[in-house]
Amino acid sequence: MSDVIREQLRAVARPDTELEVVNPAGAPPAIESALDETRAIPPMLDLVRAAEDRGFDAVVIACFTDPGLEAAREQVSIPVIGIQDAAMHLAAQIGHRFSVLTTLRHRVPVRHRAALLAGLERRLASCPVLNLPVLETVADRERVVELLIRTGRRAIEEDGAEVLILGCAGLGDLAPRVQRELGVPVVDPNAAALKLAETLVDLGLAHSKAGLYATPVRESAHVVAV
Amino acid sequence: MSDVIREQLRAVARPDTELEVVNPAGAPPAIESALDETRAIPPMLDLVRAAEDRGFDAVVIACFTDPGLEAAREQVSIPVIGIQDAAMHLAAQIGHRFSVLTTLRHRVPVRHRAALLAGLERRLASCPVLNLPVLETVADRERVVELLIRTGRRAIEEDGAEVLILGCAGLGDLAPRVQRELGVPVVDPNAAALKLAETLVDLGLAHSKAGLYATPVRESAHVVAV
Amino acid sequence: MSDVIREQLRAVARPDTELEVVNPAGAPPAIESALDETRAIPPMLDLVRAAEDRGFDAVVIACFTDPGLEAAREQVSIPVIGIQDAAMHLAAQIGHRFSVLTTLRHRVPVRHRAALLAGLERRLASCPVLNLPVLETVADRERVVELLIRTGRRAIEEDGAEVLILGCAGLGDLAPRVQRELGVPVVDPNAAALKLAETLVDLGLAHSKAGLYATPVRESAHVVAV
Amino acid sequence: MSDVIREQLRAVARPDTELEVVNPAGAPPAIESALDETRAIPPMLDLVRAAEDRGFDAVVIACFTDPGLEAAREQVSIPVIGIQDAAMHLAAQIGHRFSVLTTLRHRVPVRHRAALLAGLERRLASCPVLNLPVLETVADRERVVELLIRTGRRAIEEDGAEVLILGCAGLGDLAPRVQRELGVPVVDPNAAALKLAETLVDLGLAHSKAGLYATPVRESAHVVAV
Amino acid sequence: MSDVIREQLRAVARPDTELEVVNPAGAPPAIESALDETRAIPPMLDLVRAAEDRGFDAVVIACFTDPGLEAAREQVSIPVIGIQDAAMHLAAQIGHRFSVLTTLRHRVPVRHRAALLAGLERRLASCPVLNLPVLETVADRERVVELLIRTGRRAIEEDGAEVLILGCAGLGDLAPRVQRELGVPVVDPNAAALKLAETLVDLGLAHSKAGLYATPVRESAHVVAV
Amino acid sequence: MSDVIREQLRAVARPDTELEVVNPAGAPPAIESALDETRAIPPMLDLVRAAEDRGFDAVVIACFTDPGLEAAREQVSIPVIGIQDAAMHLAAQIGHRFSVLTTLRHRVPVRHRAALLAGLERRLASCPVLNLPVLETVADRERVVELLIRTGRRAIEEDGAEVLILGCAGLGDLAPRVQRELGVPVVDPNAAALKLAETLVDLGLAHSKAGLYATPVRESAHVVAV
Repeated sequence: MSDVIREQLRAVARPDTELEVVNPAGAPPAIESALDETRAIPPMLDLVRAAEDRGFDAVVIACFTDPGLEAAREQVSIPVIGIQDAAMHLAAQIGHRFSVLTTLRHRVPVRHRAALLAGLERRLASCPVLNLPVLETVADRERVVELLIRTGRRAIEEDGAEVLILGCAGLGDLAPRVQRELGVPVVDPNAAALKLAETLVDLGLAHSKAGLYATPVRESAHVVAV
Repeated sequence: MSDVIREQLRAVARPDTELEVVNPAGAPPAIESALDETRAIPPMLDLVRAAEDRGFDAVVIACFTDPGLEAAREQVSIPVIGIQDAAMHLAAQIGHRFSVLTTLRHRVPVRHRAALLAGLERRLASCPVLNLPVLETVADRERVVELLIRTGRRAIEEDGAEVLILGCAGLGDLAPRVQRELGVPVVDPNAAALKLAETLVDLGLAHSKAGLYATPVRESAHVVAV
Repeated sequence: MSDVIREQLRAVARPDTELEVVNPAGAPPAIESALDETRAIPPMLDLVRAAEDRGFDAVVIACFTDPGLEAAREQVSIPVIGIQDAAMHLAAQIGHRFSVLTTLRHRVPVRHRAALLAGLERRLASCPVLNLPVLETVADRERVVELLIRTGRRAIEEDGAEVLILGCAGLGDLAPRVQRELGVPVVDPNAAALKLAETLVDLGLAHSKAGLYATPVRESAHVVAV
Repeated sequence: MSDVIREQLRAVARPDTELEVVNPAGAPPAIESALDETRAIPPMLDLVRAAEDRGFDAVVIACFTDPGLEAAREQVSIPVIGIQDAAMHLAAQIGHRFSVLTTLRHRVPVRHRAALLAGLERRLASCPVLNLPVLETVADRERVVELLIRTGRRAIEEDGAEVLILGCAGLGDLAPRVQRELGVPVVDPNAAALKLAETLVDLGLAHSKAGLYATPVRESAHVVAV
Repeated sequence: MSDVIREQLRAVARPDTELEVVNPAGAPPAIESALDETRAIPPMLDLVRAAEDRGFDAVVIACFTDPGLEAAREQVSIPVIGIQDAAMHLAAQIGHRFSVLTTLRHRVPVRHRAALLAGLERRLASCPVLNLPVLETVADRERVVELLIRTGRRAIEEDGAEVLILGCAGLGDLAPRVQRELGVPVVDPNAAALKLAETLVDLGLAHSKAGLYATPVRESAHVVAV
Repeated sequence: MSDVIREQLRAVARPDTELEVVNPAGAPPAIESALDETRAIPPMLDLVRAAEDRGFDAVVIACFTDPGLEAAREQVSIPVIGIQDAAMHLAAQIGHRFSVLTTLRHRVPVRHRAALLAGLERRLASCPVLNLPVLETVADRERVVELLIRTGRRAIEEDGAEVLILGCAGLGDLAPRVQRELGVPVVDPNAAALKLAETLVDLGLAHSKAGLYATPVRESAHVVAV
């Protein structure tokens, strides 16, 4: 999946932005449960630390549930962006209510909780379900586009959505096509996160170390202990 | 004030972003009341329409109360950004709670209402008051910096703020100095809005026309009637 | 439209209440967008100031979106009432949940935001849409009444509304007929505001000047400057 | 206490409003606990039913915790007003945030719960405690006025209150004096409720019977059974 | 009804828990209105006081609206449990959203208010209505079970309920059968409350006397006065 | 630390409850950051799966941040309890507002987020900070008890807390001593969770599999793949 994402991000990145898109070694092929997240996080954290060591200016975690975002932010001082949080805040800035097209039914509560933590629960119009396992998002793209359009249209007409978010990293590149068809803004979460990363770097900002993302004090000693 | 803002935004804009910074003719010298807003909005709306006609890609309304944001978005199809909304969402993405350094005491409820509409009322730690009329923000910059640092430090220590927002367009350029001193991210609302404008243009997004910002239907006829 | 409203308010006013119902000169014929609001506000503010100067005890802004309410309250010390806010608080005091019959679809988010600012978002059952431009509310009243009854009935049965608000100044006088038909309280927003004005005058109360509605300090100097 | 309230309400009632102010027989001398409420409610309900039978147009329950309000509304079709709910909604309509001067510390959670049910928890600035048992509110009025002024001033300066509510029926008549001294609106809950009663009668409104206040179906049979 | 509840609670109680299940003398046969509550509370309070005097360790008020809970807690120091509050908190701990199967339509707002006070309004998926007067819950149990299954299934499929609560003391014993059929946890509110009572006793906890449930100070004198 | 917890839980467990208290192999010695959590979760999940395989009826995760709770619940069908969630819901059932005595300042936002997800943010009075690293909670217990009493008293007097929660698994056994001293209920989170586990087992309940905690579908295949 990283090939698609790399190509897609290259298309919206600033010309002078250098991109490296990698899969964490040993992570599950897709994140569809909290269990998948717990397996993906340790190798992802290694990549985040390595990115800072290698001089990267920012990191995007390109999985829609933002797994390990807090731990990653504790570890490094460069900005770390979660695509779900970035997409929701971007959507909230261009319309009154947004819907998140959601791959599987049992992930709907996960979206509700994320919107609540972001503060955007009243802006979330709905989470219409695609019934589309993550790994199937890469097969038969035409069918997927049709599914997105059909589901998105219902969210606009029945739930009052003014903006749509494609709720899976693997769907991001289809945003422009869906947007053209439906006539409302459709947010690609990967792109939203990349542009936020560029913004933070341009402005000399990163996540605060004064609270939720404070660097753990026991860290260096602990690394030795393990 | 537009000179300061122009210079400041030039410093953070992408190299290929063309900037034009103008004051609406006949608008009050500063916006410190709802009355000031009602006077600034009509000439500002003229500028917004003219910007679209002249081919600009996006507009930033560089006044912290986001006056006329809804009406401007109804009028045009290019993105229109309010600096308060952009600053609050940016701050919410890099820390758990943020404080807005607020010029005058009676503007505190205005901030609370804006945070509530944005969905960020639980993320707003406090609105410490500077007791600084807008027009004084340009005089004696050293004293102003000291005031920002002193007030910001209290917000961090007593209110649990992890991020600070400078709550006035005229203060934006001081953000890096305050940030250096306090060690937490300090958001310049002008810059936050400019980068959001660049982001939206890069991604082919604009505010939705499917709800709150729908183009008024009576518009063309109405212009004739008046 | 002012004739209808004058007659209607005369019917519910206290016998000793003197009423003057006027249209702001040059305001749009109807308020259906934020743009309409920005055009209606300046002449309306002139009327509010004149009312205080002429010795009126209170002012009602008889447009359902409460345009310019904050600016008007900043300007004068006599009570200024918005009909939307008055209607929502009155409805909240006589039933658990209320619905606002809304003229046009794109005004629904405007109602949600108003309810949120009032604190009544959990009490708002729904905003069923009439698809009725404001100027058509005065034509073919029988058809309008039928439309209100049909739409209101659905709000009661499907959305759990216990009280209805007629969401447009031009519909207010139809409240008693709709109420008779549906058997639940139907709030005329004009009347709700007028009675709140009488209440405040009787009790010697007006909006507070200690915060959101503080009189702007630069005002007199500024008037000269423009 | 009913003498004071009668005189006070007479002063603000419409000239043509007939008032009868009575104490429920056998009710506790003051309501300072949920237990007091349970004892006051049965005789109060008898009075409410009798009021409707005798042709009264509306009833005000002049105890700040609004005891038995729901049961009373179930029983009769004429409007029944609780003074706490009326005072909070009135205060919310004339300022951004209000404080309730509260007799005893352990009643503060009761105010928070009432504000939450009304939807006004974000508008409630604080509940400063007077440490004043209800029965002492009638003794040494000068001391009580001083206490109200001192406590109210602190709420304005420290908690951002723009409006004050006197949180006890026995304090209502002191509102004008406190208001004169502090320069912000001070709401007498008895008067707020009386004017709401007049408003509802003038407008032909009463609490809805379509939900929370529906007339119990078993009622007539049940009365026989007991 | 107390026979059914006694048997049912006996089945889930700890072996060493002694149970006494009694009906308050003179209380209405069922609680379906606020009026019913006001009639049930005084004899219920007598039973609560007697229970403490006789050395009981805890009291459960087995009526789903938790009538008189606050007054009962003021009176005694042993834990007093309301079955609605216990059931909602238990449900919230085993699933993201729960639905309360509700006997009558006009009781739905009562559930919403209880969820709001508990803090669980965002966890309440829906209150599907059974149209089943309380006294009919004991007749034709097979029909009632079918009704619960049909209504519960709709709540799961259409409202996203992950847990169901049977919203009436008289339905509690049917929880296991409904759960077996639907495959989601179904909470019997009587049992939830009994186990909470056992928990509090085991842990040496009771409701706090430092605020909402403080023992009324005038109590002993007052008892004499009446 | 597991020795203390075992002894403490043994004291409050039902006589017939068999307890096994174990530390996950290779987990950090204390959980004070999101990073610590990500390291503790994989071995903890192994223990949870093993517990179900070995026939245990329920699992308690005795770390106050409830690390891995969702993943654990996805994995197994027996109840899995988080001590933070159990403690907050228990506290909310015995008082209006509770405070969580929090080990370190940067964990305060973690508590706010947990309360928000639980729905109890309005019930959380404060999170007073102990400045006590987790590993120091086991040293010099007398000093720790004093610190808890001093900090708890301030929460009661200044923040309106009616109930206290000891916000660390390692502090739980001190709850009775602090409660004796302060006279308000003090919740030991380990005990709260254990009793909830017993309750769920007694009632035949477990977390719902119909939403947030659904068993991942790819699970068996995936285990092979890794």
